[in-house]
Amino acid sequence: MITDFVKTKIPEKDQLKQELSVEREKLFASQTRIKEAKLPVMVIFEGWGAAGKGSVIGRVIKNIDPRFFKVRTTAAPTTEELRYPFLYRFLREIPEAGKFTFFDTYWMNDVINGLMDKSLSEKQYADRIRSINTTERSLTDNGYLVMKFFFQIDKKEQKKRLEKLLDDRNTKWRVTAEDLYENKHYSRFEKAYDRYLADTDRSAAPWYVIDAENSRWAELQVLRFLNQGIDTALKNHALAVPILQNTFPLSPVPLLKDIPLKDKVLTDEEYDKKLDELQAELGKLHNEIYRKKIPVIIAYEGWDAAGKGGNIKRITSALDPRGFEVHPIASPEPHEKARHFLWRFWTRLPKDGHIAIFDRTWYGRVMVERLEGFCSENDWQRAYNEMNEFEKELADWGAVVIKFWVQIDNATQLERFTDRQNTPEKQWKITDEDWRNREKWDQYEEAVNEMLQKTSTTFAPWHILESNDKKYARIKALTIVVEELKKACKKR
Amino acid sequence: MITDFVKTKIPEKDQLKQELSVEREKLFASQTRIKEAKLPVMVIFEGWGAAGKGSVIGRVIKNIDPRFFKVRTTAAPTTEELRYPFLYRFLREIPEAGKFTFFDTYWMNDVINGLMDKSLSEKQYADRIRSINTTERSLTDNGYLVMKFFFQIDKKEQKKRLEKLLDDRNTKWRVTAEDLYENKHYSRFEKAYDRYLADTDRSAAPWYVIDAENSRWAELQVLRFLNQGIDTALKNHALAVPILQNTFPLSPVPLLKDIPLKDKVLTDEEYDKKLDELQAELGKLHNEIYRKKIPVIIAYEGWDAAGKGGNIKRITSALDPRGFEVHPIASPEPHEKARHFLWRFWTRLPKDGHIAIFDRTWYGRVMVERLEGFCSENDWQRAYNEMNEFEKELADWGAVVIKFWVQIDNATQLERFTDRQNTPEKQWKITDEDWRNREKWDQYEEAVNEMLQKTSTTFAPWHILESNDKKYARIKALTIVVEELKKACKKR
Repeated sequence: MITDFVKTKIPEKDQLKQELSVEREKLFASQTRIKEAKLPVMVIFEGWGAAGKGSVIGRVIKNIDPRFFKVRTTAAPTTEELRYPFLYRFLREIPEAGKFTFFDTYWMNDVINGLMDKSLSEKQYADRIRSINTTERSLTDNGYLVMKFFFQIDKKEQKKRLEKLLDDRNTKWRVTAEDLYENKHYSRFEKAYDRYLADTDRSAAPWYVIDAENSRWAELQVLRFLNQGIDTALKNHALAVPILQNTFPLSPVPLLKDIPLKDKVLTDEEYDKKLDELQAELGKLHNEIYRKKIPVIIAYEGWDAAGKGGNIKRITSALDPRGFEVHPIASPEPHEKARHFLWRFWTRLPKDGHIAIFDRTWYGRVMVERLEGFCSENDWQRAYNEMNEFEKELADWGAVVIKFWVQIDNATQLERFTDRQNTPEKQWKITDEDWRNREKWDQYEEAVNEMLQKTSTTFAPWHILESNDKKYARIKALTIVVEELKKACKKR
Repeated sequence: MITDFVKTKIPEKDQLKQELSVEREKLFASQTRIKEAKLPVMVIFEGWGAAGKGSVIGRVIKNIDPRFFKVRTTAAPTTEELRYPFLYRFLREIPEAGKFTFFDTYWMNDVINGLMDKSLSEKQYADRIRSINTTERSLTDNGYLVMKFFFQIDKKEQKKRLEKLLDDRNTKWRVTAEDLYENKHYSRFEKAYDRYLADTDRSAAPWYVIDAENSRWAELQVLRFLNQGIDTALKNHALAVPILQNTFPLSPVPLLKDIPLKDKVLTDEEYDKKLDELQAELGKLHNEIYRKKIPVIIAYEGWDAAGKGGNIKRITSALDPRGFEVHPIASPEPHEKARHFLWRFWTRLPKDGHIAIFDRTWYGRVMVERLEGFCSENDWQRAYNEMNEFEKELADWGAVVIKFWVQIDNATQLERFTDRQNTPEKQWKITDEDWRNREKWDQYEEAVNEMLQKTSTTFAPWHILESNDKKYARIKALTIVVEELKKACKKR
């Protein structure tokens, strides 16, 4: 893409000036359209060192009201950031609906550096490419406009610019050792960039190579493409997006009606004994996963009053409080609703060696959001795949992902609701909404079955916790967590 | 994708049998849904030699009424087929709406063989991959379901099967030298397949790797995925598809209103002289392009009564009739309407060294089909890009693509219509529809302008033929054709 890049003629000075002012006005005018359509816009600038990305960004943003954009500069990852999945530090920064974020470099450099210093194997490179393509597709599928520019200058031009910067005391500091290295090994970098560009050029988020030899001309190219991209995105904005075929390997899981609950009980003695044993073991394992830097994600879903809270408490009471966090998930806040629906989960991921427990999860998309119409049918239909992709990222990162469905039958729920209603100190736990949801039991059962069948993958299967007897469910949860952590520890 | 393929457990015999019968019935039942939804289904089987593709196809089709499917086996390309673009012999065979085509291998092998015997350079490999991905996306965007299966067996299993076939006089002939070569160089082929699968795995048309060690199990996997794929496609079937951002380099072209017509005239003497010269030159060039095997595509669009027919005649009268064909394009026939809108143009491409002249073209999509509502807005909005992609394929193949817009003004059209109406021997040339279209002049002008601006690419630019004076337009067309053919001949 850059090795065979063909320059087009730069317009004459007067024409350049005139076209620049037309395109600048177009961008200015599009702000309100973007705001009204709630279009989030990511504009990613990549390219050679000293190609002038920064100065073009500086001029482009002059046409936009400061309330509507952010600029983000990506530096090398910190030690802290390296403890999260590769995508984490990038996805944190995605814009909210109706606003621009301009990125002065994004995730390309991490991959290029890994290629150049061979710290990424071919397999890891392929995984990064898949992560990036999957994520960019998921962003565009969820209504984001992703514009990607590569600023192209040749070896001689780059050398000239670096020397000029070095000549001046005031600009010297802007030239890094990486820039000089890149110029010295220009053709090796060129090959790596070309490979990356080809591998991440997708129809929904294509690359635009910008001839950056002249800065005004580069600005004009960027503005033209950006304005065109915005037009296209606004035309597409109301469209539903195809549901993808399932290519994830599935792990069998029963239908709710086929789950026997009656015989799943424990005596108090059995319970107390096992609880002690398992909690002691879990405590030890927590140290081991901390030492081995294994991230753990435990996700709880289940019927109202199924006993999620008490179950979680039996896990956490065995853990070192410095090493875990529980995230109760309610309706999204406005700033969360304004972003990709998985954003609030990405930003709550544990770092390696830590445990995150989610009390309700991203699966709200295909249960409450589906049944209450909080998202479109197309949104929740697509979400099964998007959630599988999300969990695949976590599994590939090395995380242990444990998903629990806490199951009770209809009669048991009624009993517990009534008990809550009639016991003054439990009344805060029961609301009118709980009773309303209960009326939709059958619809929920259908939605839950579809969810379990479509998202029980081999890398993140669903586990059923039979919880008519809460003690049984707690011991089963602890047993599964202990087993899974042991398996993971053995592998490291 | 196949090097790290993980087998799942084969179900027990009874369960396999039971599940097979469930999935077979599902496929049987989906025939009518596919027919009603007018879903065209391409099922592509690729994989190792002797992996059992043929026998699984044989069993899958037993569940479908013969009126609803075709089976196509792909052999090595004939000498004749090699004279067309790579995609030609494959695209000819796409199914029509509501029907299945099962392909016993498709375009993968051509690419793999090119990789293995190094007849494809890295650049050519990348071009093939781009062609395939673009085409599969265009098919799915236009409502096709594309299911791709790779039949996987290991080296030992393949060897065992080949030896068994060779042992029997009746099956010996089924083992080819290629099969034996493939088994001997299994790991090299494995790498090539893996690369190809990764490079062509796209969300709208993903790969399914099938564990083919057991034939019934392979059948069950295929049926499961196929039934799932059909369900997904039927859910998506009514969806509009995003318009893509334009990444093709454009060549400037004026708006119709800015095209001066008045001074574009020739005297009879000038005309006669130039006509003779140019036609003589064109005749010679026709020999040269035949010898150099250059394919030529000349596309005419323009206002009714603009003089397309007479213009074409001045070109063809200089040509050897064995080396060209004129394709008058009217409304599509039912069997054409039932396929991708570009199918009737793919199947009319010239072979190398030949000239195809289209009197009206694929651009009908964004003119008459747009204005008369013969396709959805989304269809014609997407078509600009689809047509640019189509012409990029032609240009990359090495074709000279010349596109003419024959321009007259509104008054001139009225004059010519009136003349046709009043001259008995010309009356057949004028219909009520022509008069109705004339009333929509302004809408057409807008559509034509948008078409010219969006599809005048550097590799297939539009040329304007000012045709208030038909003589001027003819000489200009001949001049451009001669120039373009000269340029192309010089390059070879």
